[in-house]
Amino acid sequence: MTSRRNFLLSAGAIVGAGLVNRVQAAGLPEAPLQSAAATGAPLLPPDGRPYQPVVTLNGWSLPWRMKNGWKEFHLIAEPVQRELAPGMVANFWGYNGQSPGPTIECVEGDRVRIFVTNKLKEKTAVHWHGILLPNGMDGVGGLTQPHIPAGKTFVYEFVMKKAGLFMYHPHSDEMVQLAMGMHGAIVVHPKDPASHRVDRDFIFLTTAYDIDPGTATPRVNTMTDFNMWTWNSRVFPGIDPLVVRKGDRVRIRVGNLTMTNHPMHLHGYDFTVTQTDGGWVPRSAQWPETTVDLPIGALRAIEFDADAEGDWAFHCHKSHHTMNAMGHAVPTMVGVSQEGLADKITKLIPDYMPMGEHGMGEMGEMEMPLPDNTLPMMTGTGPFGPLEMGGMFSVVKVRAGLARNDYRDPGWYTHPEGTVAHEWAGELPDIHRKS
Amino acid sequence: MTSRRNFLLSAGAIVGAGLVNRVQAAGLPEAPLQSAAATGAPLLPPDGRPYQPVVTLNGWSLPWRMKNGWKEFHLIAEPVQRELAPGMVANFWGYNGQSPGPTIECVEGDRVRIFVTNKLKEKTAVHWHGILLPNGMDGVGGLTQPHIPAGKTFVYEFVMKKAGLFMYHPHSDEMVQLAMGMHGAIVVHPKDPASHRVDRDFIFLTTAYDIDPGTATPRVNTMTDFNMWTWNSRVFPGIDPLVVRKGDRVRIRVGNLTMTNHPMHLHGYDFTVTQTDGGWVPRSAQWPETTVDLPIGALRAIEFDADAEGDWAFHCHKSHHTMNAMGHAVPTMVGVSQEGLADKITKLIPDYMPMGEHGMGEMGEMEMPLPDNTLPMMTGTGPFGPLEMGGMFSVVKVRAGLARNDYRDPGWYTHPEGTVAHEWAGELPDIHRKS
Amino acid sequence: MTSRRNFLLSAGAIVGAGLVNRVQAAGLPEAPLQSAAATGAPLLPPDGRPYQPVVTLNGWSLPWRMKNGWKEFHLIAEPVQRELAPGMVANFWGYNGQSPGPTIECVEGDRVRIFVTNKLKEKTAVHWHGILLPNGMDGVGGLTQPHIPAGKTFVYEFVMKKAGLFMYHPHSDEMVQLAMGMHGAIVVHPKDPASHRVDRDFIFLTTAYDIDPGTATPRVNTMTDFNMWTWNSRVFPGIDPLVVRKGDRVRIRVGNLTMTNHPMHLHGYDFTVTQTDGGWVPRSAQWPETTVDLPIGALRAIEFDADAEGDWAFHCHKSHHTMNAMGHAVPTMVGVSQEGLADKITKLIPDYMPMGEHGMGEMGEMEMPLPDNTLPMMTGTGPFGPLEMGGMFSVVKVRAGLARNDYRDPGWYTHPEGTVAHEWAGELPDIHRKS
Repeated sequence: MTSRRNFLLSAGAIVGAGLVNRVQAAGLPEAPLQSAAATGAPLLPPDGRPYQPVVTLNGWSLPWRMKNGWKEFHLIAEPVQRELAPGMVANFWGYNGQSPGPTIECVEGDRVRIFVTNKLKEKTAVHWHGILLPNGMDGVGGLTQPHIPAGKTFVYEFVMKKAGLFMYHPHSDEMVQLAMGMHGAIVVHPKDPASHRVDRDFIFLTTAYDIDPGTATPRVNTMTDFNMWTWNSRVFPGIDPLVVRKGDRVRIRVGNLTMTNHPMHLHGYDFTVTQTDGGWVPRSAQWPETTVDLPIGALRAIEFDADAEGDWAFHCHKSHHTMNAMGHAVPTMVGVSQEGLADKITKLIPDYMPMGEHGMGEMGEMEMPLPDNTLPMMTGTGPFGPLEMGGMFSVVKVRAGLARNDYRDPGWYTHPEGTVAHEWAGELPDIHRKS
Repeated sequence: MTSRRNFLLSAGAIVGAGLVNRVQAAGLPEAPLQSAAATGAPLLPPDGRPYQPVVTLNGWSLPWRMKNGWKEFHLIAEPVQRELAPGMVANFWGYNGQSPGPTIECVEGDRVRIFVTNKLKEKTAVHWHGILLPNGMDGVGGLTQPHIPAGKTFVYEFVMKKAGLFMYHPHSDEMVQLAMGMHGAIVVHPKDPASHRVDRDFIFLTTAYDIDPGTATPRVNTMTDFNMWTWNSRVFPGIDPLVVRKGDRVRIRVGNLTMTNHPMHLHGYDFTVTQTDGGWVPRSAQWPETTVDLPIGALRAIEFDADAEGDWAFHCHKSHHTMNAMGHAVPTMVGVSQEGLADKITKLIPDYMPMGEHGMGEMGEMEMPLPDNTLPMMTGTGPFGPLEMGGMFSVVKVRAGLARNDYRDPGWYTHPEGTVAHEWAGELPDIHRKS
Repeated sequence: MTSRRNFLLSAGAIVGAGLVNRVQAAGLPEAPLQSAAATGAPLLPPDGRPYQPVVTLNGWSLPWRMKNGWKEFHLIAEPVQRELAPGMVANFWGYNGQSPGPTIECVEGDRVRIFVTNKLKEKTAVHWHGILLPNGMDGVGGLTQPHIPAGKTFVYEFVMKKAGLFMYHPHSDEMVQLAMGMHGAIVVHPKDPASHRVDRDFIFLTTAYDIDPGTATPRVNTMTDFNMWTWNSRVFPGIDPLVVRKGDRVRIRVGNLTMTNHPMHLHGYDFTVTQTDGGWVPRSAQWPETTVDLPIGALRAIEFDADAEGDWAFHCHKSHHTMNAMGHAVPTMVGVSQEGLADKITKLIPDYMPMGEHGMGEMGEMEMPLPDNTLPMMTGTGPFGPLEMGGMFSVVKVRAGLARNDYRDPGWYTHPEGTVAHEWAGELPDIHRKS
């Protein structure tokens, strides 16, 4: 299969299912694989019902084959390597070469057949979250089907009754397989392509991992103290920008598979939630918001008109979630200091350094050497200096004059004179402090 | 008082207040007690205004006596023993023999008098969460009333102005008394029994406990690292199924008294939230959802039409909340390993085993011996094999042909041919991996 | 500048911008400073468009000067000392002498110029959360502007396009500067003062700190285990009551800058959310609630008619958030006891006491000596005894007969006879326990 990487450098050229070397035989459909972490081009439908495709942030959409009126997809559950951001690669489990797995796109009313081949060393099963389907297709290992043994392929068949945004993930050793990165998005487009149409339509899922600095494999029984908060298994500065043409109607679809809510905050805009994994939100029920509090096990589509040009921060508003690994566990130990343990820890660990007592600024200046395969806690550089971010942070780049399908990074926003906060050159402030 | 246990085996026979040996004297009303953890039969009202009763999941409704136009209830705050699931009994504090306390059901407009006898060794007070009442009846110890001393009985009197779903819990040494299991549900039915009527109406509350494996009493100052995530103080596989007749309009009412949100996810259905502890949600304001993110200190009623037969998983979507105890604290220690402590821990604790490094599958295969009074981390067996769940997990069992009031477990769903995901018997998949 | 402290003792006397000794020169506007933690008087607008001012709970509103049609404000980012409650002062970073910084109030359509002088020892930048403005004024250090170096003053200019409730906080070393207390509220009043008018309008923001008992400076890299849960950097019993005249239409505006949701629960009332930082919530979309689950990075205005007299508890419903510091870290250590570490901890720390094994009541009775500058875990006394609260707890005091602008604490509610839960003087209860 042709690589999709470097899409953002070559966008405008729409690649997609046309490049897939289809297996024309009566056997299983080919399972395209992905080795790159860049944002793939939207997959224009080569056959079947027409639709306006989504852009999967740092992901891609899975080609299918039509067979006797069924859309056939093929997912491979398998160990993968995922670059979280340049400088760090994690050992995950995923689908078709990456974590997340590819986005499955189809159309309301489609009959879909999804082959799932298990190339893990343990059993799995795939639950189609939010989709109305026969009980036996629900993918809950033990309850609605046998678990899929290692090395075997199972077949799911159902009709997509309802347009919407959904996701797939294991329901077999679920906590572990989620903690290892197994998940992917599903978009069912409306039968009428003009219905609820937008100009730009992005999708990604949030996941969290607990990877010790210097290691590559997540701890799987962590409940709260994750240190890698990701969008589609990427962290800043590894997350691509969301490139938008000024004036576009924009939809961003997000689902949450972590263990905590993510308040997704967009600068510069108000928006409304227009869709959940349960369906369209009636206009009468919509709230104006600048932050959508994304619950776990749920998806939300937000929409807005991109009328304000610029580089607009878009991030989870939990400030630790815009940081990379930083040893949250350390203060937990230090919290015991009131009991007299702190000195004893220092004796046990001579190089122990109580983080945070003097501010992160100092930490940054110390330029501590990082272990291998470890990202800085906060990093990134913008047009005006260091961004000091990590994790769930990206930028919505709104520009006039882009082509309709141009998602290439336009670089930093060029501020017209007078629109940047500027230094005061006048006299010193007159401050009266009350004694 | 007649036992309500084994109700699910004998349902159809409606037991209830009629079996209560009422105290006809002018004294306190009798305080029925419950020793079982099974789901009690719906309590059909023997007198007072008519209503369609709820089913309290793994709980029961409190009989009352009518006296001069007042409905008199009697709650006993006391230490109790609660079976969390077969194999584990916890030392809790509760009401009338169990945690949760019995559900209090009454009707909009009812005048209620609730006697609260304190059989704890410390003071208590009962707050009637969500109910509009005179300030002095609000049950906040120290603020609106004296705390109820050990051994004393206090009387609350108010009119149920508003139909809805509410709860009662202590507002006296509140953190501790909640952490020990004190809580119960309140349902105020509409004056007109036809208003907002459904066919099946379930209610339960979520609570969380931190009980060290091998022990029975919760730690009371835990803030985040709970290990028993419960519905009505039960964990899977101890939670009864929610049995529903195909075609029924179903309401499930849930309240949250833990320290974190619970995204309650139902498979196979979309639903809407129709009611909160603040009142009915107008239809114009309802969102379609597959997951309701249940806030703390709030209740939600969800409703759907049970048109799809089958065994539909219903669970909190935080994957650790569908697990039983598993030592979340261990990785917190291990997180310090980057500082060089890990080796030293191993020296201190020779039997120390870093959980999760090789996946839970291996853990399961090791069949580690469990301490006494401890549930497996993940367990349960369905019709197709192990379910690998714990905590906040149950199944909504939708069946055709049930009787109207039959809540007995119908066993596992018998899938018609072709509705179960099946193994592929054909040729091997053709997978092209990009080098 | 005249002190605003003791306002609650002297209210009725409206102080405000009139007392500011304005710098009439062409230089920077004066930067009024605040040294007290009491609730300031509402700042009646001395010039510019008229509006009905808000009351900032345990805070104050920043006077401005009009200059050629612009409202000029001056914020000073600087280290401050904040009394969290009597008995504990924290070393924070804030604005204009306090944490939180002063509330900025203006009117829809106002042209505002905000000077920000950085008196910290590290760079900063101010993001105007929720406000629609030119990209260069968005205040994201590195992305939309250079960071403001220590000692420098920067100028932001924009037009307030939209009425609403917003906040300002750093977007430069963000996690640390938030963890150190830098934040403030913004209210943009509607152009038409009659639009959405209420009688009482309160505002505050929630923040959380991790301050070891006996110390005064927050740990800045804590992610979940905070121990001081505050409203406007105050904890109970340091939070002023919200004083309301019976019959008033009341609005309470709250924003969340912690790392977790806060389910804000009001006793005695139903309310609706009428506004977010995205705008007004249409009536058709409003839900009746008794608890608003406040997401992080978001603001909510709730409204209700104060028709029920009394002292109504108003608090975060996470029970640990109505507690002060209590060493949540200790049970994390104790959680390891199953591995055999507990004994070894006791050997390392002879004075180690496993909290919570015997209930907090016993803890209270032990009257353990507290370290200096440390608040009791639970405290406060009401008209009927101990309140046993801390953290995010206050009381909405609804009284008949108050003057329109009287916010002075009216003392405890005097319950009319028969409205307080009372002790039962009759015979003993007849309790039949099932064997």
